[in-house]
Amino acid sequence: MQVELIIIGDELLIGQVVDTNSNWMCSHLNAIGIQVKQISTISDREEDITAALTLASTRADIILMTGGLGPTKDDVTKPTLAKYFNSELIYDEGVLKHVEQIFAKYEKPMPSENLKQAEVLKIAEVMFNKAGTAPGMWIKHNQIYFAVMPGVPSEMKYLMEHEVLPRLKNLNGRKKIIHKNILTSGLGESFLAERIYDIEERLPKYIKLAYLPSFAQVRLRLSAEGDNEDMLRKEVDGFAEEIKSSLINFYVNDTQQTLEETLLAEMEKYKLTLATAESCTGGYVSHLITQIPGSSRVFLGGIVSYSNDVKVSSIDVRQKTLDDFGAVSEQTAIEMALGVKRKIGSNYSVAITGIAGPDGGSLEKPVGTVWVAIAGINKTKSYNFLFGTRRNDNIIRASNNALNLLLRLVREENMHL
Amino acid sequence: MQVELIIIGDELLIGQVVDTNSNWMCSHLNAIGIQVKQISTISDREEDITAALTLASTRADIILMTGGLGPTKDDVTKPTLAKYFNSELIYDEGVLKHVEQIFAKYEKPMPSENLKQAEVLKIAEVMFNKAGTAPGMWIKHNQIYFAVMPGVPSEMKYLMEHEVLPRLKNLNGRKKIIHKNILTSGLGESFLAERIYDIEERLPKYIKLAYLPSFAQVRLRLSAEGDNEDMLRKEVDGFAEEIKSSLINFYVNDTQQTLEETLLAEMEKYKLTLATAESCTGGYVSHLITQIPGSSRVFLGGIVSYSNDVKVSSIDVRQKTLDDFGAVSEQTAIEMALGVKRKIGSNYSVAITGIAGPDGGSLEKPVGTVWVAIAGINKTKSYNFLFGTRRNDNIIRASNNALNLLLRLVREENMHL
Repeated sequence: MQVELIIIGDELLIGQVVDTNSNWMCSHLNAIGIQVKQISTISDREEDITAALTLASTRADIILMTGGLGPTKDDVTKPTLAKYFNSELIYDEGVLKHVEQIFAKYEKPMPSENLKQAEVLKIAEVMFNKAGTAPGMWIKHNQIYFAVMPGVPSEMKYLMEHEVLPRLKNLNGRKKIIHKNILTSGLGESFLAERIYDIEERLPKYIKLAYLPSFAQVRLRLSAEGDNEDMLRKEVDGFAEEIKSSLINFYVNDTQQTLEETLLAEMEKYKLTLATAESCTGGYVSHLITQIPGSSRVFLGGIVSYSNDVKVSSIDVRQKTLDDFGAVSEQTAIEMALGVKRKIGSNYSVAITGIAGPDGGSLEKPVGTVWVAIAGINKTKSYNFLFGTRRNDNIIRASNNALNLLLRLVREENMHL
Repeated sequence: MQVELIIIGDELLIGQVVDTNSNWMCSHLNAIGIQVKQISTISDREEDITAALTLASTRADIILMTGGLGPTKDDVTKPTLAKYFNSELIYDEGVLKHVEQIFAKYEKPMPSENLKQAEVLKIAEVMFNKAGTAPGMWIKHNQIYFAVMPGVPSEMKYLMEHEVLPRLKNLNGRKKIIHKNILTSGLGESFLAERIYDIEERLPKYIKLAYLPSFAQVRLRLSAEGDNEDMLRKEVDGFAEEIKSSLINFYVNDTQQTLEETLLAEMEKYKLTLATAESCTGGYVSHLITQIPGSSRVFLGGIVSYSNDVKVSSIDVRQKTLDDFGAVSEQTAIEMALGVKRKIGSNYSVAITGIAGPDGGSLEKPVGTVWVAIAGINKTKSYNFLFGTRRNDNIIRASNNALNLLLRLVREENMHL
């Protein structure tokens, strides 16, 4: 099965927007055993769309398209497809109602342009888009399947998850592919590789191990391909257990959950509560936590103590500590953690103070210097990091490391209760 | 002049790595008036590379390629090009010395694979790569120019900046392309389109208007193509001014900055300071603000008052207000804004309380209900929204709307001082 993506959008070709859609699509297709053969990124022009479709159709059995489905003049995908497939555009009553309801909900009159959102190709099966107003379409033409989706990432993801990936899974002729993910945190890729070298050497040819690193985290993915799904599953599970045993202090989960989801689930299980005190991470840790539905059962609140005055007034860091050791110091981090825990009344707290950059560094405390303190039920621990010079990378690295260290203390103090 | 990119790399097609190279290349080409016509992302296989080259050569005058130039087995670009151009690979003494020097610098023996790095196509002009070991190549063949570069971002960027872009600037017969971006916030795409319909109708054929929507924001992009850059610039600026006048209450900037960058720059200009009180957005507003270097000159700190107790204890929301009106109410939002402003001692504050979902909604206050309050020097304003049911979308929508409303009050209270 050959799959190609056609990504439509002038904004990509002039370099205004980074295309993250095709990466998301490729990785989710890969997870169900489909490898993408080519991605063609083209403009919003009719002749370019037609040419790309014509060529892709000579190479692929399945063509996934995104972009150009909006209600404005520069959105030409639908009329272009109507010509290409020699079909016509018809109003879909269901989609029309959906679009009208969205405008009614916001108590706004619907501009006439939005009527166009309800137009679909007559030959298409409508893929209903609950995440927006532009419907997706599924088309079979000359033995080739086409999925047409909007370019807005949240809408594309909704349609992929609820409509396209399930349809692709049902198409025949594919070998079974089994995946198992092991999320680790706190150890770099090459050190991980050293620790599990012997296990990796023993993997049979049909089981592959991939390292997917991100900031302060490495996801290990075991993939097995074959005919007998049960056998593959058993074998992969066996290797996964061996890897977990070798990485016990860095193991987060094998559930495809994120680090913060795992942390919250374990804290909730032990009936623990959390508060945060953030300086250089500026609220990113509390954002990561509160992205998760139900986080309010664990997370009580946080202080973004960006200025020194707020550190003193809101979470009782002593002025003398700031004067003697500076805002970026072990002492300040510990006082932030203990202060926010007391003020907010939680069982656990995490505090982060550092120099995110690009300015503000010194010889003694260069840009990238970060202190993290974790206060638990009985223990308070502190950790020092030296990251790089890129501000946003430092914010993410510091936040993920802090969440990981918090998870370690939660497990240490509660796991064997 | 038609330019295409061929991006070679299996890691992109399995979704392991986000392709940021092509975005960087497109925006830097665009800045010198070159619009990329297509990006083809393909695997490291000889037949796919040859097919992509053959097709691109039928469409483009200039083809920029990245990837597959390393010393390992899966790097096949050079032998494939040798076949394609009917040329041969020869050792380049300069490159060989350079590679040897790099290994000598790190006091490591050079693996024999790295001898291959010194191989270049006989017909190519070598583009010396000071950022790495793989040389770039510039080839002219059948009136088409080819630039061959490594896929490592720092090496690609070095070669683009020092070798490729200067060569492209020197090639003749290029039309000029002018862009102008107008960022708006607070009005949906189709409502914007209605307001500027008359202006859009009057655009000449060589000036295009694109709508690039994201949460609570729409970027409008005017693009003009022609020979006389000054004339185009003047005309585009004229239309941009007309659009800005029609959208005055929704206009953010025409500087390519983000909403939060604009807000911080204007607040700094007026010497204002900011505090945040976030409930349902969980720290995302303070994260957006603190991502920006130098934000500490404006942003003093914030409270993520997730639980009701923290709303009372940290920012003085009255228990009676919570009892009478609920945590998600106009009254609570206003008390949060006034409380955090007083506690942190800022000139301005923004407060957000709502039901992000997916749970926690009621008939009276469904998921997606959000109250935003902005407290300024003299005025306090409050706004009600009803968003959708997707938690993360609601967090981003509420945050961007809050930043936009804050910008409106900052301008209202300070702009004509």
